[in-house]
Amino acid sequence: MRWVNGCAADSLSLADRAFQFGDGVFRSLRCEGGGIPYWGRHLAKLAADCAALGIAAPDEAVWHADLQLAAPADAAIKLTVTRGESVRGYAVPQTSLPNRVLQLAPLPPPPPGQGVRVRWCEMRAGWQPRLAGVKHLNRLENVMARAEWCDPEVFEGLLLDRDGHVLEGVMSNVLALSGRVLFTPRLDGGGVAGVMRGVAIDAAARVGVAVRETALTPASLLAADRLWLSNSLIGLVPVRELAGQHWGTHPLDAAFAEAIAAIRKEETLWLQPAAA
Amino acid sequence: MRWVNGCAADSLSLADRAFQFGDGVFRSLRCEGGGIPYWGRHLAKLAADCAALGIAAPDEAVWHADLQLAAPADAAIKLTVTRGESVRGYAVPQTSLPNRVLQLAPLPPPPPGQGVRVRWCEMRAGWQPRLAGVKHLNRLENVMARAEWCDPEVFEGLLLDRDGHVLEGVMSNVLALSGRVLFTPRLDGGGVAGVMRGVAIDAAARVGVAVRETALTPASLLAADRLWLSNSLIGLVPVRELAGQHWGTHPLDAAFAEAIAAIRKEETLWLQPAAA
Repeated sequence: MRWVNGCAADSLSLADRAFQFGDGVFRSLRCEGGGIPYWGRHLAKLAADCAALGIAAPDEAVWHADLQLAAPADAAIKLTVTRGESVRGYAVPQTSLPNRVLQLAPLPPPPPGQGVRVRWCEMRAGWQPRLAGVKHLNRLENVMARAEWCDPEVFEGLLLDRDGHVLEGVMSNVLALSGRVLFTPRLDGGGVAGVMRGVAIDAAARVGVAVRETALTPASLLAADRLWLSNSLIGLVPVRELAGQHWGTHPLDAAFAEAIAAIRKEETLWLQPAAA
Repeated sequence: MRWVNGCAADSLSLADRAFQFGDGVFRSLRCEGGGIPYWGRHLAKLAADCAALGIAAPDEAVWHADLQLAAPADAAIKLTVTRGESVRGYAVPQTSLPNRVLQLAPLPPPPPGQGVRVRWCEMRAGWQPRLAGVKHLNRLENVMARAEWCDPEVFEGLLLDRDGHVLEGVMSNVLALSGRVLFTPRLDGGGVAGVMRGVAIDAAARVGVAVRETALTPASLLAADRLWLSNSLIGLVPVRELAGQHWGTHPLDAAFAEAIAAIRKEETLWLQPAAA
């Protein structure tokens, strides 16, 4: 199921700059039981990412009307904003109007409760401060990194940056608990600052755990007491194995899960049931 | 005028990975007087760029049939190959079939004969060796760098890389003649290795000028005897002004123009006139 600017559609103009240049941003999020967890964060992230590219972000009311099209189905929702159409060349025409795309797909299966297997990617993540943190449509790096493995038992691959520091997973952020400090890579040269990463950081404050965004070496990641991956479709998922290192349960697992459930409850947008 | 896989079409499926991730490659080239200069190089570059992304490149015969659709109009031709469609996620489905897109636009006006004005961009070019040289569809950097100026007198902006070396123009490659040596940036960390850059390098050999692909500082660029920009739509264009530095004519201008004209003549694919 797909909609462009609120109308059912399966295709987009070849003149759209998303197709030409990847000139746009997107979000993947859950719709479950008629609710969209962390909607306010997704809205803010869409606005911030549009602003980073100089694209006029749609209003909240427009998104609400779009989301209502999806209600009340359980689905993985993908929201895309493109810069709109232009004829030729990189220059942005003053007349271009952003296009909004809403797509629904089945929710992914939940990751195993005891955690997931993760690998290192060979490919290094790129460097580009001007796009760092932004969930834009230039995602070839993710595609190529994801192509490094096909073992279905491997849930995710982790990328180092040019300097050899851990940056992120192909489709997730990385968080490492060492003692009472939650470490997560600083995203000033690349990567996507995901909504679920922000939720995990806020959960840490509720649990009484300090947070440090910093440069993380692979060794420090392997030495962590607990490793998590986060993204909006899977939530906060513990890592069970990485490069021969194994993790079981952690005394703070339950506290983090409770804090996240509380934030989720506080921050869910409830859609209206579809008209009969 | 647009065609998808040889059929007239104005849109592409939202499931296409070019729209989702910029997962594809493209070429811009001239069709003029029924001929396509340097066609063999464009074909080879398309194949190499597809290979870099693991996309199956269309055969030459398929491209010939596509190009025949454009004949004999004078046009800027854009050829795009996408990886094809997939439902959700970065993983490449084994079943995806590449999509081919052919688009025509009017030829851009020729740059002024005495050369063009060029500026430095504030934005640094990104670093990603795995994509360096490839003309892929992840072009947000170009879009953002091009948005730095709107003065129509400024023809192009030049980008430095993270290390402060000159990498390329927003839409062109950079070549600098110093004495009897033609310098051009090494493209191992980023940039696009354009077809016209290759033609200029081959022309240098005919003119008896050595070529060095190397790290170039902004100072060495400003100190050059002659600066050129290259791309397939504009050819080899002299720079008249950059950051207060001015260039007039150069004793080797005519020799370079002759060598390029000779290569162009040798390497033009002549399309058949359209059936009446």
